[in-house]
Amino acid sequence: MKQAVVGEDTAIGRANVASTPEREAYYRRLTDVSTYALWTVANVIEPWFPRSTSVPMLWRYEELRPLVLESLKLVRPSEAGRRVVALENPTRKGSSACVGWLYSGLQGMSPGESTSAHRHAAAALRFILEGSGAYTVVDGHKVHLKARDFIITPATAWHDHGVSAEGQVCIWQDGLDMLLVNQLEANFYEVHPDIVQPAPYVANDSPGIYGGPGLIPAIEPWSKPYSPLLKYEWNPTYERLVTAAEVWEGTPFDGVIMQYVNPVTGGSVMPTLSAYVQLLRPNQHTKAHRQTGSYVYTVAKGEGCSIIDGQRFDWGEKDVFVVPSWAVHEHVNASASEDAVLFSFTDQPVMRALGLYREQPFDMNGGFQSLDRQNQV
Amino acid sequence: MKQAVVGEDTAIGRANVASTPEREAYYRRLTDVSTYALWTVANVIEPWFPRSTSVPMLWRYEELRPLVLESLKLVRPSEAGRRVVALENPTRKGSSACVGWLYSGLQGMSPGESTSAHRHAAAALRFILEGSGAYTVVDGHKVHLKARDFIITPATAWHDHGVSAEGQVCIWQDGLDMLLVNQLEANFYEVHPDIVQPAPYVANDSPGIYGGPGLIPAIEPWSKPYSPLLKYEWNPTYERLVTAAEVWEGTPFDGVIMQYVNPVTGGSVMPTLSAYVQLLRPNQHTKAHRQTGSYVYTVAKGEGCSIIDGQRFDWGEKDVFVVPSWAVHEHVNASASEDAVLFSFTDQPVMRALGLYREQPFDMNGGFQSLDRQNQV
Amino acid sequence: MKQAVVGEDTAIGRANVASTPEREAYYRRLTDVSTYALWTVANVIEPWFPRSTSVPMLWRYEELRPLVLESLKLVRPSEAGRRVVALENPTRKGSSACVGWLYSGLQGMSPGESTSAHRHAAAALRFILEGSGAYTVVDGHKVHLKARDFIITPATAWHDHGVSAEGQVCIWQDGLDMLLVNQLEANFYEVHPDIVQPAPYVANDSPGIYGGPGLIPAIEPWSKPYSPLLKYEWNPTYERLVTAAEVWEGTPFDGVIMQYVNPVTGGSVMPTLSAYVQLLRPNQHTKAHRQTGSYVYTVAKGEGCSIIDGQRFDWGEKDVFVVPSWAVHEHVNASASEDAVLFSFTDQPVMRALGLYREQPFDMNGGFQSLDRQNQV
Amino acid sequence: MKQAVVGEDTAIGRANVASTPEREAYYRRLTDVSTYALWTVANVIEPWFPRSTSVPMLWRYEELRPLVLESLKLVRPSEAGRRVVALENPTRKGSSACVGWLYSGLQGMSPGESTSAHRHAAAALRFILEGSGAYTVVDGHKVHLKARDFIITPATAWHDHGVSAEGQVCIWQDGLDMLLVNQLEANFYEVHPDIVQPAPYVANDSPGIYGGPGLIPAIEPWSKPYSPLLKYEWNPTYERLVTAAEVWEGTPFDGVIMQYVNPVTGGSVMPTLSAYVQLLRPNQHTKAHRQTGSYVYTVAKGEGCSIIDGQRFDWGEKDVFVVPSWAVHEHVNASASEDAVLFSFTDQPVMRALGLYREQPFDMNGGFQSLDRQNQV
Repeated sequence: MKQAVVGEDTAIGRANVASTPEREAYYRRLTDVSTYALWTVANVIEPWFPRSTSVPMLWRYEELRPLVLESLKLVRPSEAGRRVVALENPTRKGSSACVGWLYSGLQGMSPGESTSAHRHAAAALRFILEGSGAYTVVDGHKVHLKARDFIITPATAWHDHGVSAEGQVCIWQDGLDMLLVNQLEANFYEVHPDIVQPAPYVANDSPGIYGGPGLIPAIEPWSKPYSPLLKYEWNPTYERLVTAAEVWEGTPFDGVIMQYVNPVTGGSVMPTLSAYVQLLRPNQHTKAHRQTGSYVYTVAKGEGCSIIDGQRFDWGEKDVFVVPSWAVHEHVNASASEDAVLFSFTDQPVMRALGLYREQPFDMNGGFQSLDRQNQV
Repeated sequence: MKQAVVGEDTAIGRANVASTPEREAYYRRLTDVSTYALWTVANVIEPWFPRSTSVPMLWRYEELRPLVLESLKLVRPSEAGRRVVALENPTRKGSSACVGWLYSGLQGMSPGESTSAHRHAAAALRFILEGSGAYTVVDGHKVHLKARDFIITPATAWHDHGVSAEGQVCIWQDGLDMLLVNQLEANFYEVHPDIVQPAPYVANDSPGIYGGPGLIPAIEPWSKPYSPLLKYEWNPTYERLVTAAEVWEGTPFDGVIMQYVNPVTGGSVMPTLSAYVQLLRPNQHTKAHRQTGSYVYTVAKGEGCSIIDGQRFDWGEKDVFVVPSWAVHEHVNASASEDAVLFSFTDQPVMRALGLYREQPFDMNGGFQSLDRQNQV
Repeated sequence: MKQAVVGEDTAIGRANVASTPEREAYYRRLTDVSTYALWTVANVIEPWFPRSTSVPMLWRYEELRPLVLESLKLVRPSEAGRRVVALENPTRKGSSACVGWLYSGLQGMSPGESTSAHRHAAAALRFILEGSGAYTVVDGHKVHLKARDFIITPATAWHDHGVSAEGQVCIWQDGLDMLLVNQLEANFYEVHPDIVQPAPYVANDSPGIYGGPGLIPAIEPWSKPYSPLLKYEWNPTYERLVTAAEVWEGTPFDGVIMQYVNPVTGGSVMPTLSAYVQLLRPNQHTKAHRQTGSYVYTVAKGEGCSIIDGQRFDWGEKDVFVVPSWAVHEHVNASASEDAVLFSFTDQPVMRALGLYREQPFDMNGGFQSLDRQNQV
Repeated sequence: MKQAVVGEDTAIGRANVASTPEREAYYRRLTDVSTYALWTVANVIEPWFPRSTSVPMLWRYEELRPLVLESLKLVRPSEAGRRVVALENPTRKGSSACVGWLYSGLQGMSPGESTSAHRHAAAALRFILEGSGAYTVVDGHKVHLKARDFIITPATAWHDHGVSAEGQVCIWQDGLDMLLVNQLEANFYEVHPDIVQPAPYVANDSPGIYGGPGLIPAIEPWSKPYSPLLKYEWNPTYERLVTAAEVWEGTPFDGVIMQYVNPVTGGSVMPTLSAYVQLLRPNQHTKAHRQTGSYVYTVAKGEGCSIIDGQRFDWGEKDVFVVPSWAVHEHVNASASEDAVLFSFTDQPVMRALGLYREQPFDMNGGFQSLDRQNQV
């Protein structure tokens, strides 16, 4: 008698229909009226657990940086809109995605350049990698950007970017949910009617007003679905990680990990994307776990490696790597003396909003993936 | 000088990079390191507005019914799991989707048959089309089903179905979000360890307790993310539409339209799927509008037509038709004496949860689509 | 050595300061600068548990009814505004409160009479006791009222009442939170500028549109802090109790108890007041428990008694009785063949909103209060 | 004919019933059955707008400080529990309230002293006025306190306080909602079974983990109804006010005003009490307005005055003053060179939770109260 064997398609309730000429003829008649027999695909569209079509992957900054700089000369801003070397998952050619439905790319900009203002139903964020003089304007609020600052340009907000003429070539990492929004057939795009949007507010008013610890301005409640705090500066962020590390052990899987939050809700900075920053103590080796959602990590500080689905990825500063949905992963700080810090962003808020978030510790081998499955990349 | 021309890719900010040998060589070098130049795809992945890959479509019940009945003889329940003639959008071959990422199919079951119990991260709903003796069990709560009842089998809830030996062949429409959940790489599936789940509660306790108007049991708050009211019976639903129609004009676009709601939150019945029922008065012709999200309609009562992106679809009882995201649509009750009632389900809650819901009236031609664009289907 | 003896003021941490001439002189100097020594009142203002200043109490309808009818002749509507015999707790003379800070009274109105329209920051509700032809208008929405209907006239909503000329003398019970709102120094009152407010909507549109089971109109979300369903009719309410009783045992303390809810939130009908209706099966004797919050019960149907803090109160139809905060109470249906139904309203939403709601089963004597503490009233 | 004259009790709908012997006899009969005629009190219990029973008041620290220090010698901690000089509104003798239902007092503690641990349904907060070595422990989390730090000891959390043996005499201001909770008949009090609660966590872990700007730990969601951030340190708070003042004008009524918030919700630190800190620029004179709710201000820095219901109160550092509900108030920084900072706490969250919050600008005399109504206090 058949049993409820988890994970095998011979289990009761799974489809196992042998092909016969009669059935094949029936299937063709179904096709004629734009239908199909569920049992011919049921086991595929009802998988036992998520198997991502993306693979774990790491992009080295030392490889990407020259390509970004080259793009600045290869095409003019007016031709390209933006000069971005975008990351594409090796098993997802043509998807424009670095993992899952997340988009990420490294954007370069030379002093004196700026983009035109636009807005879209997709949400965007930036993590500054190098340079000086960068700024972004979001719905008229200008913020100045320095290396390792984190900035949001939310869905529906007018935004544009630039580098002041006195600055240096800047490179930052963009992250967007636009591929997901496209899959959901809900994307819109508009160019600002004035090309350059007005910026009537005092520069850096957003972090000035909303960047306090446990403090928000006592004004009418903020009603937009994203954070009024547009910039999360690196210095107070890193200081907080160090302070927290003095009083808190952190989590087994991620060390001293903080979520960048919307200060008026305590929730994710935008409805579809969330960002995190985590400190790994010298020599720390976190335990492995897996989560639904797709994850893009950027090394903010330090050197180490991450083991993702049994494969080891060594990383240094500004490298980018991705963890697909439900891939087992653990992180290692390779330094015996310095902390390491990872910035990451993810569509986990989508998982949570739709009731699809799951996480699971790796419960074999003491919580660490087996070494013999590791292959240095 | 270039202008911000909405909708044209010659607008400022859009990508317009001519091909050169140097650039093509650069693109190849990008490909070598799993990257690409954003500007080569930017205008595609940042569309001006949603253009669905699905087309409007109608399936006639008189065509589908014999195929469903045939399936009952063609394969045994133990082979197929379930015998379902599933709907596939003509321009989405291989997607298993009827529109967007929605799945729908017509399931048949003979008296005395039942499925094994299972659960998944996907959410399901059913609308009963014909037959008698059907029942479903959700987390141990059994409900009996009659024609035009609406039932939910939520994500993570154990569920199974059957038809009592004294009943008649039943056909119902299934609707699931599983294809979306698969796209999000977050689906899980489990067969119940006992194959048939226990049903310790009094039959129909869910609608008995939660099916009152403006009343919920005064017990500990329900904490699950879906409605504790599992069955929405047709008779009180239709009575309510008739009663409401006596005191309310309804909306211009949908007539007297009600959302089936979770009575403990007033929100959608499940986090990802919502269902509606709407009454069109005799001869009513609603104004046209468009919305993000995908929509599957089933004709519960009456005859008429819907005009979707300029194409006319005539419908009768139990026919199913779909409206893709952002497709302009309007409905017509063809009878001068009888009301018509449409049941529908949609992933609109996903749009709302992610801040992606938009709607727009059709503002030309007095709010009605031009007749010369209509083609009877 | 002193111990942490719960409930005794000799416990460590409680104040026990003997009087001395020096201390008394100090206290007088404190008084001179509008201060006092905390320890002189600490044990009073930090009680071990709530001891209500109100007592349990029952008012017989047969006593109140003639007084209400007499009031209709004693003063004219134009003099009194409204003719109401209001209930006052015996130990709270001068408070105008029937229990806690709740107001309740029986209002009479003769055919052809009506009140002027007004609104206030206090919330009001009504339970119809007898008569015909009564109506209320809330923000322009008129509803017709019959015996045992429950109606809300929320804070800030314009409202007025009347009895049609063809009707019969009506008596209904009013319940308000106005004494609490006064204690909070937050009450406002306005007379409608037109004395009689316009009623542009179709009569009974509110219950017509919002009175369906698990259905709400698919229109823009209702944004007011109270229920759009203004009237909860008796017939479907009682039917639901009977239906639920067939599939649900109910709670040990309250039988088959339902909360009247705002259908768009599933929460209390108004932010400060909630109402319930509960069916006691023939001969049912509920277990005792206690809760924070004040409770006013009206007997909608049947005969029985309630035991409140050891005192027995026998009740019949239309009698009103009160349970003070943290008073132990249990209910008994005295009939062996008929069910009994209690309507009640309470400020429990205030308790919940402020994090002050507590409840506790009575855990002695098998959950029932000792008989020898009972005294028939 | 009578008109709807706002604010006058001759308006239609208000009660105006002349006394007659017959009516007086009727009233006596009502009293006999614990009832009264609504119209005899209606105009009192339905006021046109809030008229607080409290008066504006200021307590000078230079007067209170010696009295607090004297209390440390007058009674032992073991006798008094705590040595507190509590503030009582002059028109509310016997209420123990400084304004509305708010309690506040100045508590003194000598080095080496500590209280026993307890908890209650009332919520408490502290603002440190002077001294060194103070600490508080809340549910096992110890925090060290310095002058002008703000600390919460929430409802239901075990808490105790002390001053280390190496410290100096400390004075802080306590604020509690206990009088309101008593009015609501919902207070509970417990002494910790171990008298001194264990403190297993690293000292200052709460501010260390939760005190970052726009950052919260990425752990399981905090589920308690109060802030996990227990201490709001003065230095980063003041720095934020100064930073915000550089980019933000502030509000017309309160200058650069920040709410201390629960970082995981963005809401008030506790369900019933909220706290604010506001910077007044040199010579700033805010416009007048009024709000429901009761307000207690403590001068954290600087000198100036506030005009409350036409009465002027001059203040200096550590003075405490109160604004009753609906009292018109405006603030003045008397210094031409230094900023002034006010700390305040309020039951405004109660007003908001119950839908009773209102505010209104003072719209006469250019928004400032008339000088001739001012009397220096």
